[in-house]
Amino acid sequence: MSFSGSVYKTLQKISGKSNVTRKKEELLCYSYDATGNSFLPEVIIFPGSENEVSQILNLASKQNFIVVPRGAGSGMTGGAVPVNGGLVMVTSRMNKILEINENNFIAKVQPGVIVADLHKKVEEKNLFYPPDPASSSICTIGGNIAECAGGPRAVKYGVTRDYVLGLKAVLPSGKIIQTGVKTAKGVAGYDLTRLIVGSEGTLAIVTEITLKLLAKPAAIKTLAVFFDSMQKAARTVSGIMRETVIPRCVEYLDKASIDLVKDYISFDLPDNIKALLIIELDGYKTQVEKDALDIQKLCFSYNALEVLIAEDKTQSQELWNARKALSPALYKIANNKINEDIVVPVDKIPDMVQITKEIQKTYGLKVVSFGHAGDGNIHCNIMYNKADESEVKKANKAVDKLFQATLDLGGTITGEHGVGITKMKYLPKEIGATQIELMRGIKKVFDPLNILNPGKIFIS
Amino acid sequence: MSFSGSVYKTLQKISGKSNVTRKKEELLCYSYDATGNSFLPEVIIFPGSENEVSQILNLASKQNFIVVPRGAGSGMTGGAVPVNGGLVMVTSRMNKILEINENNFIAKVQPGVIVADLHKKVEEKNLFYPPDPASSSICTIGGNIAECAGGPRAVKYGVTRDYVLGLKAVLPSGKIIQTGVKTAKGVAGYDLTRLIVGSEGTLAIVTEITLKLLAKPAAIKTLAVFFDSMQKAARTVSGIMRETVIPRCVEYLDKASIDLVKDYISFDLPDNIKALLIIELDGYKTQVEKDALDIQKLCFSYNALEVLIAEDKTQSQELWNARKALSPALYKIANNKINEDIVVPVDKIPDMVQITKEIQKTYGLKVVSFGHAGDGNIHCNIMYNKADESEVKKANKAVDKLFQATLDLGGTITGEHGVGITKMKYLPKEIGATQIELMRGIKKVFDPLNILNPGKIFIS
Repeated sequence: MSFSGSVYKTLQKISGKSNVTRKKEELLCYSYDATGNSFLPEVIIFPGSENEVSQILNLASKQNFIVVPRGAGSGMTGGAVPVNGGLVMVTSRMNKILEINENNFIAKVQPGVIVADLHKKVEEKNLFYPPDPASSSICTIGGNIAECAGGPRAVKYGVTRDYVLGLKAVLPSGKIIQTGVKTAKGVAGYDLTRLIVGSEGTLAIVTEITLKLLAKPAAIKTLAVFFDSMQKAARTVSGIMRETVIPRCVEYLDKASIDLVKDYISFDLPDNIKALLIIELDGYKTQVEKDALDIQKLCFSYNALEVLIAEDKTQSQELWNARKALSPALYKIANNKINEDIVVPVDKIPDMVQITKEIQKTYGLKVVSFGHAGDGNIHCNIMYNKADESEVKKANKAVDKLFQATLDLGGTITGEHGVGITKMKYLPKEIGATQIELMRGIKKVFDPLNILNPGKIFIS
Repeated sequence: MSFSGSVYKTLQKISGKSNVTRKKEELLCYSYDATGNSFLPEVIIFPGSENEVSQILNLASKQNFIVVPRGAGSGMTGGAVPVNGGLVMVTSRMNKILEINENNFIAKVQPGVIVADLHKKVEEKNLFYPPDPASSSICTIGGNIAECAGGPRAVKYGVTRDYVLGLKAVLPSGKIIQTGVKTAKGVAGYDLTRLIVGSEGTLAIVTEITLKLLAKPAAIKTLAVFFDSMQKAARTVSGIMRETVIPRCVEYLDKASIDLVKDYISFDLPDNIKALLIIELDGYKTQVEKDALDIQKLCFSYNALEVLIAEDKTQSQELWNARKALSPALYKIANNKINEDIVVPVDKIPDMVQITKEIQKTYGLKVVSFGHAGDGNIHCNIMYNKADESEVKKANKAVDKLFQATLDLGGTITGEHGVGITKMKYLPKEIGATQIELMRGIKKVFDPLNILNPGKIFIS
């Protein structure tokens, strides 16, 4: 490592004095992410352009210092945390929506654009960008690309990967590449675009993104469905997913989740409520209204206690506010959480619910589950107190058990949060040694000096 | 190269005597693809299992012989042609649909499955696999994965890549890997799945594919729209694509194409017809009927001569039979064709139509255009006589011109056919030297000995 006076001065020259810092209090602000893990960087830089990103990486490769790209730091697995120190490159100044093209249904954006801002701007033009992670009001599109973010609407619309047509990105050497296309289709050469999406900032730093947009759905209907057992809710989810109506969201909340956020909801909740599904449909007005009634009927046939169809946007917003408040509200239960975003085949959700119950019982820890049930993506939060060593041990054992059960059911250890540092040791359980060897080989092709976000995904 | 007696015997031992051949007449059958390019392989093998594929590749890496994977040989760019000889591995015996899971909306298939067979089987269960290249009645899903095939329905539903959840594949070393997931979401490590999709059989040989399925749309409506000018048709396409109704197909045929296949159509065609759009909608019955009328109205507002809404499946099938007959029918015009599947932004289709006209005029060659207008993917067929040296020269110049114009309009040289051998020399015009270097690096990680389908994509 080598942030000597001259290297620091060169960085100041590249991005301007006011955009480089090594003050302790500022370093602290960029040391952590949503996992709570914190590692102090040595320098923070806020580049203003692709050209600056290129100059910084070129310098890094010559001086052999580490660069860790960072969006809003809302990641759930430590992807943006500088585990080995070095320079943290924050994309917040590169936050322009460069183009929204209504004729070709594409947007061109810089990585620092806040996802909710993009949603707003495209919707003003009657267009639609589906991916909507719960953190959309703060997270950046660059971070979404790094982790291949999902969100509730992925059930119907897929994840970030499905909307990235092309990228501009800077390699660790400082060289700029342009991948993919600006058109609906394209297969010229290997798919570098989707290789970079989800690579957690370890292959290249993305500087411009071409996104595919859809037409904004004409109507939306939100339903709240209450159950007196998690099993009934889980069976309903797989029942719904077998129908030809694919809702755009099928979220579920267990009893502990409902208790945490019930203050957000003005509806009367049944006394014996144990599970809540939030179902959202979109499409044409008349069709959506008909579908809502069909789904209501179907839910009752699966023994729902009550099915409320939100009457207006305010009622629907109330449900979503409750859902989005969940993640931070968890800290009411315990100081620390391990948040795992496992995915199981949809028809295995009832099994997973049972396993979660058993884990809770075996280890005596509270497990709060909610998430994107429609695609089998469940956020299991294992709550514990970090200061209590025996609880930490139990929490780790609970995670081991949870992941093993997930893999046994044919699932994956991460649906949308990525591997980062928190799942590194579990990755080899899911994917074999040969694949990890291929991935390491690919990493070396992009980053032979291992200066770009090292210490992530793969155990070194 | 080393197909000595003992190597040949080992191959016979692996797959059985009746599944290995080096008879000249059989070698000839597997020497070509739909481009007409022909290179003689030395041996043909028909493995029956993943284990056999692994043994063959293991042998190849030890004996250093070339292996070229091949589906049905319907490729459009020479991807399956053994340009450097070696062994051609045909997947036709690995043609089982292993699972269609209605609860989780997935199918597991072997690479040799014919795409139309998959369509049929999933539709029997009220499910839907959207990708539908024109060759679907003969092409294999393995070939579709190698080239990332598209087809008419890609406008609404995307291409092969969007439906591949996970793969089993054999590396050139003979090692077996399993990539991706069996669930709707998954982001554990780099996206090897989509790296292999579209890699034209140069990175690994796919042995099992997990596909995402959708629910089968309840209703379909097909429209035939006639115009007295290509420009009007092109403007209508970009008009339609700006609407919130996304048709599942928007195909177009120019005058020359219509002339070639008009015998398939029993409708009366207007005398002054210069262009035909085939538009297909799917969804709920009432909605589709309403949408069809809306699109009819819209087409008339763009000065369509006539808009026919197909009354039943027979009428609709007639249109599709005509469309699918086009590619082979081209040989009525000239002995040889160069078929390019360029893509331009949808609002640039009118410009492209103009450019095609100019190319036709400049070089005095017939250019027949048809294709997937809805996503800007146009199949431009430059017709010429191979025996006439001056025509060959002119045809090559016409291709140069066509590709340059495509790239100038922000397009790509290949939407769904891949690079293979026919577009190798044009690839560097679309993607920069740095990207090609990355791709070559990736190839080396997977195939350090360069034994798997060498001489494709990249100029050696």
